[in-house]
Amino acid sequence: MLKKILIANRGEIAVRIIRTCKELGIETVAIYSTADRTSLHTQLADEAVCIGGPRPAESYLNMGAIIEAASQTGCDAIHPGFGFLSENTEFAALVEECGMKFIGPKPEVIDALGNKSKAREMMIEAGVPVVPGSEGSVNTYEALKEVVDRIGYPVLIKASAGGGGRGMRRAYKEEELKKAFETAKAEAKAAFGDDDMYVEKLVLNPKHVEFQILADEHGHVIHLGERDCSIQRRNQKMIEESPCKALSEELRERMGNDAVKAAKGAGYTNAGTVEFVLSPEGEYYFIEMNTRIQVEHPVTEMVTGIDLIKEQIRIASGLKLNYAQEDIHLNGHAIECRINAEDPHNNFAPSPGTIKSLHIPGGPGVRVDTFIYQGYQISPFYDSMAAKVIVHAPTRLEAIRRMRRVLGELVIDGIKTNQTIQFYILHQPDYIKGRFNTSFIEKHLEEMVTDNG
Amino acid sequence: MLKKILIANRGEIAVRIIRTCKELGIETVAIYSTADRTSLHTQLADEAVCIGGPRPAESYLNMGAIIEAASQTGCDAIHPGFGFLSENTEFAALVEECGMKFIGPKPEVIDALGNKSKAREMMIEAGVPVVPGSEGSVNTYEALKEVVDRIGYPVLIKASAGGGGRGMRRAYKEEELKKAFETAKAEAKAAFGDDDMYVEKLVLNPKHVEFQILADEHGHVIHLGERDCSIQRRNQKMIEESPCKALSEELRERMGNDAVKAAKGAGYTNAGTVEFVLSPEGEYYFIEMNTRIQVEHPVTEMVTGIDLIKEQIRIASGLKLNYAQEDIHLNGHAIECRINAEDPHNNFAPSPGTIKSLHIPGGPGVRVDTFIYQGYQISPFYDSMAAKVIVHAPTRLEAIRRMRRVLGELVIDGIKTNQTIQFYILHQPDYIKGRFNTSFIEKHLEEMVTDNG
Repeated sequence: MLKKILIANRGEIAVRIIRTCKELGIETVAIYSTADRTSLHTQLADEAVCIGGPRPAESYLNMGAIIEAASQTGCDAIHPGFGFLSENTEFAALVEECGMKFIGPKPEVIDALGNKSKAREMMIEAGVPVVPGSEGSVNTYEALKEVVDRIGYPVLIKASAGGGGRGMRRAYKEEELKKAFETAKAEAKAAFGDDDMYVEKLVLNPKHVEFQILADEHGHVIHLGERDCSIQRRNQKMIEESPCKALSEELRERMGNDAVKAAKGAGYTNAGTVEFVLSPEGEYYFIEMNTRIQVEHPVTEMVTGIDLIKEQIRIASGLKLNYAQEDIHLNGHAIECRINAEDPHNNFAPSPGTIKSLHIPGGPGVRVDTFIYQGYQISPFYDSMAAKVIVHAPTRLEAIRRMRRVLGELVIDGIKTNQTIQFYILHQPDYIKGRFNTSFIEKHLEEMVTDNG
Repeated sequence: MLKKILIANRGEIAVRIIRTCKELGIETVAIYSTADRTSLHTQLADEAVCIGGPRPAESYLNMGAIIEAASQTGCDAIHPGFGFLSENTEFAALVEECGMKFIGPKPEVIDALGNKSKAREMMIEAGVPVVPGSEGSVNTYEALKEVVDRIGYPVLIKASAGGGGRGMRRAYKEEELKKAFETAKAEAKAAFGDDDMYVEKLVLNPKHVEFQILADEHGHVIHLGERDCSIQRRNQKMIEESPCKALSEELRERMGNDAVKAAKGAGYTNAGTVEFVLSPEGEYYFIEMNTRIQVEHPVTEMVTGIDLIKEQIRIASGLKLNYAQEDIHLNGHAIECRINAEDPHNNFAPSPGTIKSLHIPGGPGVRVDTFIYQGYQISPFYDSMAAKVIVHAPTRLEAIRRMRRVLGELVIDGIKTNQTIQFYILHQPDYIKGRFNTSFIEKHLEEMVTDNG
């Protein structure tokens, strides 16, 4: 087993990783920026090293400083968490070159899956359904038009290097196509320095359904069921749950098998997520594979009883998977609400500040993963997620009721949060019935904000 | 279903009950003493009624005031929690006479099981093994001696009305018998106003193993597995876990069946606990049945996934049990540590005071049930339990490691607690191996306190 791990991250996920390391008897090294001196991860880790200024580029994205900290403290591995350098090929390669283990897949796998059009080709080869679209890139309008004439409208034009909705445009008819293409291409160039483009059929009213997979370094791959992450605002997930109400056992098995195929096709190792869109008709298509632990991993942990960070570390230590596919059962239902330090009445602008009063809910089936504490100052330099509130109950309806109760108990004073919005969603008939897709928030946003004035 | 419940309790268990009521959509009324104005249960309940002064006799034991509060606020039921009036026959009867439901067994059942020698007779009749001893009371030394000559030494002399170790004496040989009998009898008279006595064989080095049962009002009784509560200090449990490492599947089934027999024999309804002593040789004997929810109920909830307070309310509403015996499975392992506001270096004297800083641990498999918050003042008027920390993991060893991690994270500043003692126990080889009985703490007390100076 690995003996000492540097956690190249901050906030809630750094705390999460330290917790599992402690349970495994593995030493931990936290890194922190000057803005994070008093952050919880620095207090819980065995050692903590300041690696630079508050801006991510100065610290949490500063590869040299991070590698040096790991090396100076005698770490044998680095866990990248999510965000920051977690899907950075160069960083993963650098860690391995310096003789340490990068807790994630091989750099070349991160690289291949990070390129959307390459990933798409790999999936086609592996026999995983992809959205009808271009085979490889389309870099001229003429080439684009030819594909679109074949697949039909509406379409989604995407940057191969894209992510977070940037370098992406929709076209519902021919008149919109040229402009959409040019805008997306220019945006991709500006955002990623790379304007390689591709096009896909736009699946209308889709659910976002993703499968958690685990792959060891001995060729064994399993999936741990799915998460429905359709409740999103501008491509940022807000509520995630497992299982997805829309999947029959048969569909779950087919999608799960395809997720395993996807991972095998990519030569994947460690924990990963295969993301699909699911149409209202029950057709599903691969969209991308995330090569890191996800924010929403706890819902999978709650229904499977498996500690995913522990599995990541076991796999990175070269151990074989402890579980076969038939050992995995989804028990009950879990829901996660992300509590963000943001102001729903001011267009969800970040709301940094000091936590004046904090009450963390408890009782059966409740888990709160956070790094904030009473007196803690939320920094304006980082993303706004302040806490993840997760519930688990025998049925989805009981989980919804539990989450309402928990959100009613949670007190975070001193900053603005999206807590009332989450509470509102959990009372919406369409949410309760499972009748929602990725446009749910967009559709309900106005009433949500107004009703919670 | 019941519509509005008054919770005749305070602290952690009042909060616990309110939580489930909220999830069920049942209105709640809290009662509080003048010392508990700012206590969490008053803040979480829909309504809160002050019922008297800080001393329990003035408030939480004040039957008239409690019944009046319930009646004035239109409650259709009273949940007694544990302690206070929870096993008081008169109170249970009064609640029912006033047209409300007492959430627990019938008054006459509480009464019968509360009398140790009566309970013993009922168990003999039901075919549940009891410790060899007197059949009924022994109220003269001559009658006592006759029984002891038959069963042999060592023996335990007990008050029929007893509890909490009072009115109880051991005798290891004939010379000690008379004095033990007289002292126990005098103590029983003083403590309970009742010196009816009985005698049992003293089981040496026993484990305390108890079974959770659920019995509806339609004759269905099931058990939810066992809890090992052997880690006790002066008959006060400190650590509880489920399952008990010492039970084979076969023994679990036999004891579980006997627990169900015990409940059926007593005409029991609602949630209850059948307590056994288990000898190192695997022989077990009924000791008593607790006619209320237990402090340690969460470990059973964690391994079964069943909300016991919910089941209590369902049963009291006249509903049938949702589960058959074959639906009950113990998944993984759960451990609870009671965190008490007490000073281990001063003979565990209560340590009331203000919580200056509080950090509640999180992460997978962690549950914290508490009523304290940063700034809360722990009152000297009530028992010292400040929080229950519960963990759940796939195996016992993982649960132990998780609990160590969690106790390492938990911060309660401003008062003294037994946290370091709990941490110490979780590192003891005998605890880890499951080699412990009810004398574990007594045996290790000195080193525990010294090593944690």
